[in-house]
Amino acid sequence: MFKKEIKVMDCTVRDGGLMNDWQFSDDFVKAVYKACVEGGIDYMEIGYVSNAKYYSPTENGPWKFCKEDDLKRIVGDNPSGVKLSAMIDIGRVDPEDLRPKSQTVLSMIRVAAYVHQVDKAILLAEQCLDKGYETSINLMSVSKVLERDLDEALNDVAKSRVPTFYLVDSFGSLYHEQIEYLMKKYTTALPGKAIGIHAHNNMQLAFANTITSLMNGCTMLDATLLGLGRGAGNCPIEALIAFLKNPKYRLLPLLEAIQTVILPLQKQIDWGYHMPYLVTGMMNEHPREAMEWMDSENKNDFVSFLKKMHDNA
Amino acid sequence: MFKKEIKVMDCTVRDGGLMNDWQFSDDFVKAVYKACVEGGIDYMEIGYVSNAKYYSPTENGPWKFCKEDDLKRIVGDNPSGVKLSAMIDIGRVDPEDLRPKSQTVLSMIRVAAYVHQVDKAILLAEQCLDKGYETSINLMSVSKVLERDLDEALNDVAKSRVPTFYLVDSFGSLYHEQIEYLMKKYTTALPGKAIGIHAHNNMQLAFANTITSLMNGCTMLDATLLGLGRGAGNCPIEALIAFLKNPKYRLLPLLEAIQTVILPLQKQIDWGYHMPYLVTGMMNEHPREAMEWMDSENKNDFVSFLKKMHDNA
Repeated sequence: MFKKEIKVMDCTVRDGGLMNDWQFSDDFVKAVYKACVEGGIDYMEIGYVSNAKYYSPTENGPWKFCKEDDLKRIVGDNPSGVKLSAMIDIGRVDPEDLRPKSQTVLSMIRVAAYVHQVDKAILLAEQCLDKGYETSINLMSVSKVLERDLDEALNDVAKSRVPTFYLVDSFGSLYHEQIEYLMKKYTTALPGKAIGIHAHNNMQLAFANTITSLMNGCTMLDATLLGLGRGAGNCPIEALIAFLKNPKYRLLPLLEAIQTVILPLQKQIDWGYHMPYLVTGMMNEHPREAMEWMDSENKNDFVSFLKKMHDNA
Repeated sequence: MFKKEIKVMDCTVRDGGLMNDWQFSDDFVKAVYKACVEGGIDYMEIGYVSNAKYYSPTENGPWKFCKEDDLKRIVGDNPSGVKLSAMIDIGRVDPEDLRPKSQTVLSMIRVAAYVHQVDKAILLAEQCLDKGYETSINLMSVSKVLERDLDEALNDVAKSRVPTFYLVDSFGSLYHEQIEYLMKKYTTALPGKAIGIHAHNNMQLAFANTITSLMNGCTMLDATLLGLGRGAGNCPIEALIAFLKNPKYRLLPLLEAIQTVILPLQKQIDWGYHMPYLVTGMMNEHPREAMEWMDSENKNDFVSFLKKMHDNA
């Protein structure tokens, strides 16, 4: 599957941090960075840029904020070929948080947005472009978006300078045919722009949906080590790299990081394919309630969880 | 995805037994049976029929042999709508082991065969038909079979009375496009016959490949509770049933069995998505060496396993 346009983005720290409030040790983040560098990964999303007035800096680790000192402690001046990315949420970042590209090791800022926020997202993304960053808009929860609203959002993005737009399966609820349908819609509506995929693994389809996206014109592929990420987690980067067979990538450094820092984390964090996540995925619901259930003492009472979700519906 | 021809076969005990030599408690097997009955599953493959002169009856549990007394202890006269199936391996079963359909609660015998055994498999499957069973041939390790040999085998099966033929991804090494290619080949070569799919999950693609098969004319779908099965395991039946949305199936009894008997087994058996299985899958190799590695004290040294497999190759 050699396509030179393909770029892989590791989101292990950014998406994984949704499970532990980004309380990763420096050794952990350094090991992920090393794996990306040695594995030839194109981008590493190391966290969010956000303002401490919106989130507690004691409850949240440094990768919720991505201050320059913290970044430099891990990557120095980043002499590697890996571009660093951070995500921003609308309304959680102030203009001064986004320093000009020349003053940071970050190369890319991705704007996460719900469909009703697309105009704000375009404004913010264009500000990022003007500051020298690569940028994208990641439209979340598309599985809940009405077709008319989606078409209007795509129309606005098409007219913007934003170069990249992501298909985000926030709830891990999309099947092959739906991914194909949305990829066709996105590529048709956004000629000349790159399309990305960010999949979740509630139904064990994150990797398969990433392949399907690729086959349908997607070139920016999000993935994480051993699928570490919110709830059921993400597309496993090691499976993706094994599939791509592109000589620029190397599997061994990824396996090394998995065995040294990711596997031990499984003792503390329950990401991955678990029944409560399957249930929210199949019901096209946010994983929030499944995550609460997994944190409770009833975590393995799947029958009660299914009944609860059906009662809610 | 409503198609009335679709039949789901639970292989939890038969394929899962490859991980513990079928040393399941009666309570375990009864719980799986109950889940199949209440979940509306069409078939349950409860084990192998084989002769005790080929396998030790002390090292192997009862589901390696499927004697009638053992079957009856679990299912009585099987008054349910679930049809019971057993698998046979060529050369490991004697004619007297296959009692006439009228003398057993088994409804189906599936013949597992390598490509060079297809003529023997046809003979055996036709004997099963003559004894009153439903039957199939499950062609194993197709990812290693040369195209000419496969075409010849399909040609022989086409001329036989065997009504069902399976695409078996023994090594969990097949991607979407290969599944699509093989399904087209099988359906074209075998008009009038049913096609089945038996997928393994080395690359987290067992469920996706099952859906792909279904979209390409497959109607017999193998799956297991929480994917329990050899090595990386199988297509998870709970995800498949959630996808099918066919009113004859019910998810809740499946989740109940997973929480009561399957989840506790995870403490003893390491099936599922683990790096050694990913490595054998991506290299299109038998999971044998990965299973040995997972049983060793080096099980989490993935780097050494990858190097070893590359040295072997």
